[in-house]
Amino acid sequence: MTVNEQDSGAILHGKHAALENVRVVLSHTSHPGNIGAVARAMKTMGLSQLYLVNPRRFPDAAADAMASGATDVLAGARVCDSLDEALQGTVLAVGLTARRRDLSHPMLSLREAAPQIVAKAANAPVALIFGTEMSGLSNAELEKCQQLMTIPVNPEYGSLNLAAAVQVAAYELRLCSVDAVPVPDGFPLAAFEEVDQFYAHLEQTLIRIGFLDPKHPKRLMTRLRRLFARAGLEKEEVNILRGILKAAGQQIVD
Amino acid sequence: MTVNEQDSGAILHGKHAALENVRVVLSHTSHPGNIGAVARAMKTMGLSQLYLVNPRRFPDAAADAMASGATDVLAGARVCDSLDEALQGTVLAVGLTARRRDLSHPMLSLREAAPQIVAKAANAPVALIFGTEMSGLSNAELEKCQQLMTIPVNPEYGSLNLAAAVQVAAYELRLCSVDAVPVPDGFPLAAFEEVDQFYAHLEQTLIRIGFLDPKHPKRLMTRLRRLFARAGLEKEEVNILRGILKAAGQQIVD
Repeated sequence: MTVNEQDSGAILHGKHAALENVRVVLSHTSHPGNIGAVARAMKTMGLSQLYLVNPRRFPDAAADAMASGATDVLAGARVCDSLDEALQGTVLAVGLTARRRDLSHPMLSLREAAPQIVAKAANAPVALIFGTEMSGLSNAELEKCQQLMTIPVNPEYGSLNLAAAVQVAAYELRLCSVDAVPVPDGFPLAAFEEVDQFYAHLEQTLIRIGFLDPKHPKRLMTRLRRLFARAGLEKEEVNILRGILKAAGQQIVD
Repeated sequence: MTVNEQDSGAILHGKHAALENVRVVLSHTSHPGNIGAVARAMKTMGLSQLYLVNPRRFPDAAADAMASGATDVLAGARVCDSLDEALQGTVLAVGLTARRRDLSHPMLSLREAAPQIVAKAANAPVALIFGTEMSGLSNAELEKCQQLMTIPVNPEYGSLNLAAAVQVAAYELRLCSVDAVPVPDGFPLAAFEEVDQFYAHLEQTLIRIGFLDPKHPKRLMTRLRRLFARAGLEKEEVNILRGILKAAGQQIVD
């Protein structure tokens, strides 16, 4: 194989390949027809990874009907018992929300967020998380997100349906992905479960060292999560931080 | 009023104001539910001008149901007997199509086309034309377009439904419109009907001078239309061209 062949192979592989690492996570979806319409919207833009957290009804004939020719996306959908399960292995979790929440995660417009999402997806799985049709993402779900993203809408009527939101998001990612080629990005990022175990370890340690009162936790863990979410922890950093926690916990005499 | 007040007034007026000049023209739509879903998609992005050319059923309960809170867009929709009627007064007609047609109009991606559409809409009405669910725009309809636009999709599955296509197009226009302020653009552009009357005059004149054989017209008029469509004729230019045609026709002795 010549260098030229390698080059062109890399470019072909890179083109749109990032889209295969994008998970669309739908949480507690009420209407199976919406799941089908989402599958269709995904497929038109080259997305295929659909994760369903406790859908009210799935599989369902209404989902198949709305999926049109995208029943393969439905057939490959993974049904999960929790958002944590759907986020296993992801290095970035982005929540879609219509409004700014009181405790401010980094909040970007879809167009601002898309290049970063695609860049990370070139190397490892990322998740876009969509809440229920009626109420969006819960506060507990938002805490699992590293970043919030919004689609700019008419302030007098922002009623994007679920499939419409997925359609627009997938369109932006597709356009970004044309230029996205996997690049060596320094150090591998920590997966969701590694970061989550770190948070649990952190919380236990803070209690153990008397900094956090479990009877009056206030919003301490939420604020710490947000700090580390913004940073985007690497695997090695998680190992270092947990080493520090372990050492800190051992200083305490029971 | 101070200069500063004037400035800020102009900017406020310009922001998103161009969207009020964007007509969404749906030609021969089969399913009224799709018309309702289009109305909803439009309203989420601040579009309101809906034109329906010979819809199969309208008004209809299915349209109202799918419009959700956007029934005002449906109530204001204008039903037309022909595409010509829907294009009256527009200075730019852009056809949405999934594939390149054999006789090539200028073909742009949505993202490439959006800034120009919004810039023209800041001054005068423009039309985005969507064909039927099954077969898109007819060749006769394409001839009325000055420009074709496509939404990049998965080449293996490009099945965007009508509302999804409108949603994505409206989203792009909304993002472009934030920065769009009406600017003096030299000379006013000719409206659709003025250009159309010029084409009719041109055809008659070409026949009259013996250049066009009405029994064997070939694709002459199509090619001439495309040429002038690319140019984007100004009102004054139409007057000049028609003056030339009149003069040319008078040279012929019957």
